[in-house]
Amino acid sequence: MPETVLDLTLDAPALTAALVDFRSVSGEEKPLADAIEQALRAFPHLTVDRHGNNVVARTNLGHTERVVLAGHIDTVPIADNVPSRLDDNGILWGCGTSDMKSGVALQLRMAATVPEPNRDLTFVFYDNEEVAAHLNGLGHVAEAHPEWLRGDFAILLEPSYGEVEGGCQGTLRVHLRTTGERAHSARSWMGSNAIHAAAPILARLAAYEPRRPVIDGLEYHEGLNAVGIEGGVATNVIPDACTVVVNYRYAPDRSEEEAVAHVREVFADCGVAEFVVDDHTGGALPGLSHPAAAAFMEAVGGSARPKFGWTDVSRFSALGIPAVNYGPGDPLYAHKRDEHVEVDKIVHCEQRLRDWLTS
Amino acid sequence: MPETVLDLTLDAPALTAALVDFRSVSGEEKPLADAIEQALRAFPHLTVDRHGNNVVARTNLGHTERVVLAGHIDTVPIADNVPSRLDDNGILWGCGTSDMKSGVALQLRMAATVPEPNRDLTFVFYDNEEVAAHLNGLGHVAEAHPEWLRGDFAILLEPSYGEVEGGCQGTLRVHLRTTGERAHSARSWMGSNAIHAAAPILARLAAYEPRRPVIDGLEYHEGLNAVGIEGGVATNVIPDACTVVVNYRYAPDRSEEEAVAHVREVFADCGVAEFVVDDHTGGALPGLSHPAAAAFMEAVGGSARPKFGWTDVSRFSALGIPAVNYGPGDPLYAHKRDEHVEVDKIVHCEQRLRDWLTS
Repeated sequence: MPETVLDLTLDAPALTAALVDFRSVSGEEKPLADAIEQALRAFPHLTVDRHGNNVVARTNLGHTERVVLAGHIDTVPIADNVPSRLDDNGILWGCGTSDMKSGVALQLRMAATVPEPNRDLTFVFYDNEEVAAHLNGLGHVAEAHPEWLRGDFAILLEPSYGEVEGGCQGTLRVHLRTTGERAHSARSWMGSNAIHAAAPILARLAAYEPRRPVIDGLEYHEGLNAVGIEGGVATNVIPDACTVVVNYRYAPDRSEEEAVAHVREVFADCGVAEFVVDDHTGGALPGLSHPAAAAFMEAVGGSARPKFGWTDVSRFSALGIPAVNYGPGDPLYAHKRDEHVEVDKIVHCEQRLRDWLTS
Repeated sequence: MPETVLDLTLDAPALTAALVDFRSVSGEEKPLADAIEQALRAFPHLTVDRHGNNVVARTNLGHTERVVLAGHIDTVPIADNVPSRLDDNGILWGCGTSDMKSGVALQLRMAATVPEPNRDLTFVFYDNEEVAAHLNGLGHVAEAHPEWLRGDFAILLEPSYGEVEGGCQGTLRVHLRTTGERAHSARSWMGSNAIHAAAPILARLAAYEPRRPVIDGLEYHEGLNAVGIEGGVATNVIPDACTVVVNYRYAPDRSEEEAVAHVREVFADCGVAEFVVDDHTGGALPGLSHPAAAAFMEAVGGSARPKFGWTDVSRFSALGIPAVNYGPGDPLYAHKRDEHVEVDKIVHCEQRLRDWLTS
């Protein structure tokens, strides 16, 4: 028995408050996962599976189309902002209000109150999104039980302030290393300066013109930037090594291989001695031309925005499932002490989702 | 009474060995300073003064010309290479054999055995040369008793392998800082990259052509080099600051003010937001055209070499006294575990000095 029971008859704002008050900082999600599992097992229209502290609930109505609604149940560390507080202006304050217990509340409300949706639904609740990528529960489920995540379209209820954010850009980090030969700086001509050798790399970066491709109607915006540079042995020594750390954020029409090839090509004639890929996660296409996505866009109205940062939609993309972010929280306040969500946004998003799944 | 007595009747190689065996790592020079002071006070032709662990002995024969013979009595830490060892090939091994107890032995031999030199002589024995500049005993004497150092020409018996090294280059260290504006690297266009802003600085350094001016017949060789670079906030943040540390080694025909002005001018249009002089010591002209120096060059024979690194000759230069390095040690082995000196070089240098001071 979980120590606290979730009451899914609460309306979405009240359920959000209850979820915020149910602390679940990354690594401490078990009680909340237990409560979610127990609450969902009460519904005969759902099949419930569990892997670690990740819970997956599915309808099995035989529809030709299946939509995944996913959200992480962990939060960043609490900063004196739990329990939640609803003010007179209809703003709910507290850790996780935006990122993303208001989104999880909508998942739970859909699971509990839409027993006969017009598409089959899969609800994924996962842990450890706010920490290292290798701990991410969605990744663990994708690896252990990929069939649980099967679907035609996925919505991550991450904070997007009630607008659809499509796909996400990839991010590649490369270490570009130049070399030289040490010498006393009083006799610098006896050596070769590795920091000077980095001049063409910085010149290339400064002159770089990033692409802004339009994909499914969304304009992405790439970037190629030095995010670090380090060189030097001692203040009287000609340095024999210098490293420029470059971050390439690229639009999702480029594969991981193409991204690496592009960065190699950019610096091909810059005297790079070592080219080391330090970190890499590919982007995700918005997939808005998929019929399920198009129907969703029509139901929620407005126009989609591109997602520049990397999110878990990329994991769905890797599984061949187009995915978007759509949630009531304001991403600008995620992870902040003054994190909050507007009750109106929660109500609005819930209505849009319900309309879409029942029309 | 000093704990050990110096026997100045020993020949120069044997006296070198005795000095090496008389440990005097920087900070622990007092017993050796005591022994030197006591040994020199035995000679009626010398006036002996002391300031801290610095000993100054002078002849007062009324010559119109005065020459200063100076050397530091400290060594770097001992590395299992004391006591000294003389091998069958006439090589004396041990800490300080080269840098510079063989030179100090020659100072003591001249003081003890040339009671009526053809020029008045000043012998300076000082401490703490191997550590921080502000501890340097020669600097302390110059500040407290500048009249003790008065002279027309100075010889530092630093290791120069029996050749004259004239003057020394200055060294200026500057921090060049560029600035920008932080932003998430997924939205790099919202910020401004300070590492990219350093591109013109590195390009200027890479293209810089150093001067090689000839002064008093010696060809100097300047250098302008990055000795360090640092920038970056986090791997997903556009950095708002980058610092390039530049070391300018400059020939002694340039004043300290001219050196700073030159570096400012080199980077004038490179977008430098802050220009901070971190460290600066001027050079020293070789002064080889001075009659005393010319006579010395003629006596020791051979041709002088420029000194690229900074040495204490610069302190004499600041007092208006031309100075050179001339000692038996091999500078390549200074501070090394296998530090050594060739007995022949000691004998050779002693003979040259004696000829010059008695001819």
